[in-house]
Amino acid sequence: MNNLELMRELSVKTPSKIVMVVADGLGGLPGPDGVTELEAANLPNLDQLAAESVCGLVQHVATAITPGSGPGHLALFGYDPLEFDIGRGVLEALGIDFELRMGDLAARGNFCSVDDDGVITDRRAGRIATAVNAELCKLLRDITLDGVEVFVLPVEGYRFCLVLRGPGLQDGLTETDPQREGMKSMPVQARRPEAERSAALVNQWVAKAAERLKGQTPANMVLLRGLATRPNIPAMSEVFNLNPAGVAIYPMYRGLATLAGMKVYHGGHDIHEEVALTKTLWNDHDFFFVHFKNADSAGEDGDFARKAKALELLDSAIPAIRDLKPDVLMVTGDHATPSILKAHSWHPVPFLLNAQWRYPDDVRQFTERACRAGEFGRIPGTDVMPLAMAHAMKLAKYGA
Amino acid sequence: MNNLELMRELSVKTPSKIVMVVADGLGGLPGPDGVTELEAANLPNLDQLAAESVCGLVQHVATAITPGSGPGHLALFGYDPLEFDIGRGVLEALGIDFELRMGDLAARGNFCSVDDDGVITDRRAGRIATAVNAELCKLLRDITLDGVEVFVLPVEGYRFCLVLRGPGLQDGLTETDPQREGMKSMPVQARRPEAERSAALVNQWVAKAAERLKGQTPANMVLLRGLATRPNIPAMSEVFNLNPAGVAIYPMYRGLATLAGMKVYHGGHDIHEEVALTKTLWNDHDFFFVHFKNADSAGEDGDFARKAKALELLDSAIPAIRDLKPDVLMVTGDHATPSILKAHSWHPVPFLLNAQWRYPDDVRQFTERACRAGEFGRIPGTDVMPLAMAHAMKLAKYGA
Repeated sequence: MNNLELMRELSVKTPSKIVMVVADGLGGLPGPDGVTELEAANLPNLDQLAAESVCGLVQHVATAITPGSGPGHLALFGYDPLEFDIGRGVLEALGIDFELRMGDLAARGNFCSVDDDGVITDRRAGRIATAVNAELCKLLRDITLDGVEVFVLPVEGYRFCLVLRGPGLQDGLTETDPQREGMKSMPVQARRPEAERSAALVNQWVAKAAERLKGQTPANMVLLRGLATRPNIPAMSEVFNLNPAGVAIYPMYRGLATLAGMKVYHGGHDIHEEVALTKTLWNDHDFFFVHFKNADSAGEDGDFARKAKALELLDSAIPAIRDLKPDVLMVTGDHATPSILKAHSWHPVPFLLNAQWRYPDDVRQFTERACRAGEFGRIPGTDVMPLAMAHAMKLAKYGA
Repeated sequence: MNNLELMRELSVKTPSKIVMVVADGLGGLPGPDGVTELEAANLPNLDQLAAESVCGLVQHVATAITPGSGPGHLALFGYDPLEFDIGRGVLEALGIDFELRMGDLAARGNFCSVDDDGVITDRRAGRIATAVNAELCKLLRDITLDGVEVFVLPVEGYRFCLVLRGPGLQDGLTETDPQREGMKSMPVQARRPEAERSAALVNQWVAKAAERLKGQTPANMVLLRGLATRPNIPAMSEVFNLNPAGVAIYPMYRGLATLAGMKVYHGGHDIHEEVALTKTLWNDHDFFFVHFKNADSAGEDGDFARKAKALELLDSAIPAIRDLKPDVLMVTGDHATPSILKAHSWHPVPFLLNAQWRYPDDVRQFTERACRAGEFGRIPGTDVMPLAMAHAMKLAKYGA
């Protein structure tokens, strides 16, 4: 029996409430002063909470593997990211708040430049402005295909999202983007026979798009990547017997919460508004995922001081979260984003769980180094939800 | 997706270089003075390196399982030793520098003594000298079999190695050695129908060998064990996108490196020569496995002081290795060989990884006890290569 099957068998409905705060890109590495962002920041509330919690480190996908945001969140929601694969196209659609339905086929698109022979001269069409992108998407919007609805959605710069909706669409498709200049766009091919029709439809769309874009400069062609259908993830209500809410400011994270079957809410402008919203939802749900973005953005920008400041902002919201008196309060991240790397990394991420029925440990600070000594040790991401469920007294005993 | 599949999907070619130093039989147990060999030895360079590294303990096969040299090394090279099985015959052939090809069928042989009825009276023929062994092998060398080439190779004392080469050979064969005196040699049987012909060929060879040995004393018969073909291990170049080199003094370890697809080099006479050779190869490869044998030999002999001295010899080679400025430098063992046990053991083995993008930990000594507190904790052997790849920035992110 895997984790999900165990949860499905053992989870019970109770009035207890769980809050999971996910600080995106939480973990870091020592900067020039030899301390990490968490160590440099002044975090009185998180440190106090850590002292009253069980701590550990979370490894979301596997040892040494750097998680994308999708796999990182899925693991925290209880789903093994090596089993449930979120295609790039799906993530792109979720990231612009598009309501992807089961069976929709989504692709990430680039506008690009090709010469008269169709050879790609610039994969990003000179990084056209988002406004130009919107105009180009309008040009392509009324392309029709037999038996399916077509959505052409601008993203940012040269990126757009293509979604086909209709019966019988299948993933298992190759990409048109050769990922190199000096080559031509490639036709989509089906990796399995059931996907033949989907491949043909996408190829028809690409041909029609190329026709419409003829003569445009610099963007006169499209490239498609990550063609995928929405993964079939069993809802958290089914697996955990929960009525879960997702509170996030950015569409991507609301999208990921939707995939797990949460009811999603727009978090407003900052973590304080997210917490205030959570308070208004308190009686309607028994599980709350609250997403905090700022730490990751600063880490990606390589801005150590700003990441530390972002963590202090999160810290300032902790008292209001504790005032809600959740039975289980967890704080962790979906992956590390060390400022000195300016990117996601593979390093395990601090984790704390506050609840009445906890094993005591000696961690007094919410940092990478301190959490390593915590009682949970290093756990896979998919252990986070079972631990939450157990501490919320929502799991029956296994066997008699 | 398992580790190998993940690596295959995520590994990227970069100029960074990885050095893996494997000190055979590295780990130990406390001797009469209450300290282990690593604790008793004076290891200023390894301790300094540990202080600048991330540390942990490696468990090569599974908790409580004592690894042979084959499984121990395979795990470090990234291959699950419970999935990839190296037969004894294969290991025996590798150990005498025989160039085993894919499809070769190898067996470990004993010369033994039987009475007039064929009943085994001494499974090791009175432990005959290696020189006698060589003469006996000569006697058997020109036995021919239909459609296959036959190699009869002396090993040490009463042990030899039989290799059949030709199309269609299969493993899945039982052994002829009943492992007890007072019984007769048994015919080889095929465990699966495809191996019937291989079984028949081996039985023909045994019959012809018995004929040739009739009248010899004390060795007048052969026993065969561990009949196996070379395991089909995907090359490290394929899995990790590496161009790997193996540097070792003893043939067994060059053989194991060959199985993983490394280009192998004879390491010379001692660790200093091995490091000097590594330096000359520096521009030709991006991964270097450097094998150090002396610690294991001393441990097997139960010589605590000699094992400590061997570790000091390894320590003296560390500065020259660091001078190469590898992006990732790892030191570990393939298993423990505690002197007080005079044998391999199941105890997890110290591991250090030095690289720029490491998580800090507080380990300041390269010993069993100190490494236990390291940030990696206790990891399976197959996590070593992924960690090396991640820290060498040779792994793409998983998912978007």
